[in-house]
Amino acid sequence: MPPIVSIVGKSDSGKTTLLEKLIKEIKSRGYRVGTIKHDTHGFEIDHEGKDTWRHKKAGASVVVISSPNKIAVIKDTEEEKNLDSISAEYLSEVDIIFTEGYKRGNKPKVEVFRKELHQELLCTEDDNLIAVVTNQAFPLKVPCFELDDVKGLADLIEEKFLKVKSNPEVSLLLDGVNASLKPFIQEMFINTITGMVAALKGGKGARSIQISVTLPGGYQSETSSV
Amino acid sequence: MPPIVSIVGKSDSGKTTLLEKLIKEIKSRGYRVGTIKHDTHGFEIDHEGKDTWRHKKAGASVVVISSPNKIAVIKDTEEEKNLDSISAEYLSEVDIIFTEGYKRGNKPKVEVFRKELHQELLCTEDDNLIAVVTNQAFPLKVPCFELDDVKGLADLIEEKFLKVKSNPEVSLLLDGVNASLKPFIQEMFINTITGMVAALKGGKGARSIQISVTLPGGYQSETSSV
Repeated sequence: MPPIVSIVGKSDSGKTTLLEKLIKEIKSRGYRVGTIKHDTHGFEIDHEGKDTWRHKKAGASVVVISSPNKIAVIKDTEEEKNLDSISAEYLSEVDIIFTEGYKRGNKPKVEVFRKELHQELLCTEDDNLIAVVTNQAFPLKVPCFELDDVKGLADLIEEKFLKVKSNPEVSLLLDGVNASLKPFIQEMFINTITGMVAALKGGKGARSIQISVTLPGGYQSETSSV
Repeated sequence: MPPIVSIVGKSDSGKTTLLEKLIKEIKSRGYRVGTIKHDTHGFEIDHEGKDTWRHKKAGASVVVISSPNKIAVIKDTEEEKNLDSISAEYLSEVDIIFTEGYKRGNKPKVEVFRKELHQELLCTEDDNLIAVVTNQAFPLKVPCFELDDVKGLADLIEEKFLKVKSNPEVSLLLDGVNASLKPFIQEMFINTITGMVAALKGGKGARSIQISVTLPGGYQSETSSV
């Protein structure tokens, strides 16, 4: 799965503004970027009265709108998905994921800080903090960048997360919930699945493989009828 | 994958209105419904100025907004996805999918027709037409329903697509593109994957299994390093 870096900070610290600059900078270096925004209160993304809005309002649990160059999906969930589940389900094709928020997540964090607005940092170095973007120096072990030094921050992120050689990875969702797999089991899944896929026409060069299996009655009652 | 039924009709025939009633009716019978809307011109779904809108505008190729009970995804695509790809990627958890539009798709179709607005039907029976919802009788082999007879239409759909016992199914996306699999290969994938998953803790009762494998350098150059 792509590396995930969380951009955190107290309210009005400028998370979205930093993220806009960072997305542009990382994209200009040739990487595909995905973002995840955390919303605690629920959100309205579609426009009232539009067809998809009406489908959702009528009770569809998933609505999709598809055009030649863009697709959008709005889906009910039974509980909030964690970052690994979201990434496995929707973001496997990007090179890096930035989240806005997710201070409580366990991902590497960059905090944005403005001295005019706040007294102290939101994170400590124990929170997996990798950098602070700030107009006030802090005595920290992690690097501090000026508010406009997005190139410096991008260099750090590129070095730390994008230039490293990544290994094959696997994720498994059971009924939509991310199942954690031990390394040995991961290896078994990767080898078995790449082996099966490599035997198919066009399967050898694939960099991303996604398989969905639906068992109407669950495993036990159905496989005998295959 | 869930069955897909396309609601088609000329413009202003009342596709969205019928779909709203149909979603409510099918949902009230205990089924989970998904919808796919076709948009030829591109669409703006997010609200200008919102954080996710700004991420997308800055160049993110995928943006996700996640809240405790809903998730939304907006994603660039290189070409228009077909219904099977969309269904495999986003709608595996629903019981039935209705599309608004997709007249040219190969799915079973229900046409909505109003004599005040149009002279003739959009579809012929060769287009995989299964019913017409209309205020004018047509000499067709498929059933015609009055415009307000949503229960009659829902009965037909339930009988034809929802009460049938469905078999285990598998879909495979290689680099985001749906790969068609012969029945023997499908069976091999289903048996291998359900077998591996059944051996995991909590894997036996799963009704939906989704696996993503990422191979940074493609199959050939990487698997030796696993």
